[in-house]
Amino acid sequence: MTPHGALETPAFIFCATKGAIKGLTMEEMRLAQTQIILANTFHLLLSPGPDIVQNLGGLAKMAGWGGPTLTDSGGYQIFSMGYGSVSEEIKGTRRFPGAKSHVKIHEEGAEFRACHTGEKIFLTPERSTDIQRKIGADLIVAFDECTPYHVERAYTEEALRRSHRWEKRSLTHFKKLEKEPAGNQPPQHPQALYGVVQGGVYEDLRRESCDFVNQEDFFGHAIGGSLGENKTQMQEVVGLTRGLLRNDRPVHLLGIGRIDDIFHGVALGIDTFDCVHPTRIARHGGALVKAKERARCVGAASQREHIPLHNSIFCGDATAIEEDCACVTCQHYSRGYVHHLLKNKEMLGPILIARHNVYFMNALMADIRQAIPAGTLAQVREKWLGYA
Amino acid sequence: MTPHGALETPAFIFCATKGAIKGLTMEEMRLAQTQIILANTFHLLLSPGPDIVQNLGGLAKMAGWGGPTLTDSGGYQIFSMGYGSVSEEIKGTRRFPGAKSHVKIHEEGAEFRACHTGEKIFLTPERSTDIQRKIGADLIVAFDECTPYHVERAYTEEALRRSHRWEKRSLTHFKKLEKEPAGNQPPQHPQALYGVVQGGVYEDLRRESCDFVNQEDFFGHAIGGSLGENKTQMQEVVGLTRGLLRNDRPVHLLGIGRIDDIFHGVALGIDTFDCVHPTRIARHGGALVKAKERARCVGAASQREHIPLHNSIFCGDATAIEEDCACVTCQHYSRGYVHHLLKNKEMLGPILIARHNVYFMNALMADIRQAIPAGTLAQVREKWLGYA
Repeated sequence: MTPHGALETPAFIFCATKGAIKGLTMEEMRLAQTQIILANTFHLLLSPGPDIVQNLGGLAKMAGWGGPTLTDSGGYQIFSMGYGSVSEEIKGTRRFPGAKSHVKIHEEGAEFRACHTGEKIFLTPERSTDIQRKIGADLIVAFDECTPYHVERAYTEEALRRSHRWEKRSLTHFKKLEKEPAGNQPPQHPQALYGVVQGGVYEDLRRESCDFVNQEDFFGHAIGGSLGENKTQMQEVVGLTRGLLRNDRPVHLLGIGRIDDIFHGVALGIDTFDCVHPTRIARHGGALVKAKERARCVGAASQREHIPLHNSIFCGDATAIEEDCACVTCQHYSRGYVHHLLKNKEMLGPILIARHNVYFMNALMADIRQAIPAGTLAQVREKWLGYA
Repeated sequence: MTPHGALETPAFIFCATKGAIKGLTMEEMRLAQTQIILANTFHLLLSPGPDIVQNLGGLAKMAGWGGPTLTDSGGYQIFSMGYGSVSEEIKGTRRFPGAKSHVKIHEEGAEFRACHTGEKIFLTPERSTDIQRKIGADLIVAFDECTPYHVERAYTEEALRRSHRWEKRSLTHFKKLEKEPAGNQPPQHPQALYGVVQGGVYEDLRRESCDFVNQEDFFGHAIGGSLGENKTQMQEVVGLTRGLLRNDRPVHLLGIGRIDDIFHGVALGIDTFDCVHPTRIARHGGALVKAKERARCVGAASQREHIPLHNSIFCGDATAIEEDCACVTCQHYSRGYVHHLLKNKEMLGPILIARHNVYFMNALMADIRQAIPAGTLAQVREKWLGYA
């Protein structure tokens, strides 16, 4: 239950990074059975800024959504600027801490230069919380440092301890603001704070981090940080971490949203997931499909969870993306038409696929929600994923 | 009345050039009170090709529209390739007939090379009609040559006579296909053929062209070709031409869609208009507004019929594009939010403006339809345009 309405879990949270889903209006998100969206504090801080978001009525109203929302702490993007992204790591162009970096980390907080304006921005636990109160999401996240896979254990440990101090400061500041709302022009509704578990791939650090969040007065917990270098290690780290978290609080898995990862996560008792995947692959012509269509179009052995509609095999194909899908795209448009749009770089191509992909993820989660009490998760997994 | 439903006139026809409105689904077009869309035969001929359009159920079904549709003859785009566009004319880079051109014109038809594939394509009146039957629009257009402003009178005259012979061949072929549908796999519904009036800015040629279409068995007439070098001349040519056309057939004005031109046209008794303007300016951040808001934001003296939402004066503006507009965008989103989206290159910015602009044009036409029998066109013009 959030101030903007109830949330049935497990649920998928769609990424409206800058306060907008790429190509879809919020009416379309609602029609596609969406329950909740998130926006990134880092992006909204740079543009349009928290004061403007607040003046435009807060995130939910500004974006024409009116439903439940979440914001992250801004930490993930800031530290990505410092460490470089995973793709940089693969390409050998990564930046290590200490190397020339856009980010300086102190005990007080993290300092970075905004890429557009060159303006120096100093983010602290208190300021992240202030910003998230102005943005006004229902669910907000404590400020932490997200350490990637390639850093040393010693650094991961040092960052973890600092993150705990930062998260505690977030919580203290959050509680204070809740009691003294007047000076801070808070949202007209209560907010709930999530504490983040870090610790990289190290069991003892994850344990220490779980102990920390379990003991503090957070509303829920988010599993963050590096989850390893491959799927097996990720599943181990997530499994271990979830097992160490108390069961009376909601648990969110940050940034993970492949179908197989969701089935793994819900079996562990994870409540919510978020990922840019469904709307990002749509922009590249990828339509999510259930096991049957995937096997027919790209082969059952493929690791891909989508069909690439820009591929010429879909030219003139009069069938829907999925014949058994009730989304607006599948009800009214053919693969051949979407292929034509993609080939001609019409904006509508990615839009129609995104509408399908969002509906698809929500239908998947609805199926899972029914399967859990019915004890039919294995059959539902077979239907969506095709392999056991 | 068309096979896909009735059409109240005067009406605005929105351009789905390649079979898609830029950024809007057909459900959104319906929600914005749209009556009819058009697609360009030239574009659909190149991709995906008339056979694929037919296999996907014809234009209306393929595009998820299901309502009334129109296709042009393909002539306008072909001859634009030959002559160069108006913008080339202004820049002094125009190509004259006889100079190196992508297009060769014979008595039989026009030959051109497809820009993507280099394939040689020969379009004749018969082939344009065949293609338009496969695409399956309700309203189709006879094949003509569209001569621009900068050509000589002698060429305009020669082209006009040839266009009349081509249009007559279009009509003959159309009638023949109507009687022998089996060999041509026609649409399951009847189509109606428009004859085009050419003649450039020359009164005697326009008169000759009007006499021609009036005498032939066309369903309706379209006013095409060069309308002069400025608005005054355009209004003169359109006024003269409309006055020479019979009153018992619908009249379409090709490619014209500014608000002031529409008021001028409906006063003359023109039934339908088309223009890419409402969706094109949306992609550049321009939102159509009525006189009051235009005067407030850009000054009453401006020739602009829109407000430029990318302009920083709209930063943080919590009001709707038009407070008295019932469109989805104005009901749920602020100018400040749309400004934020444009500034951050979010696809949703142009989409939200396009939804407003389409609704705006349909609301304008609905207002005009009410004003004509009520005799209040002057007041309605004042409300939308602001000057008399």
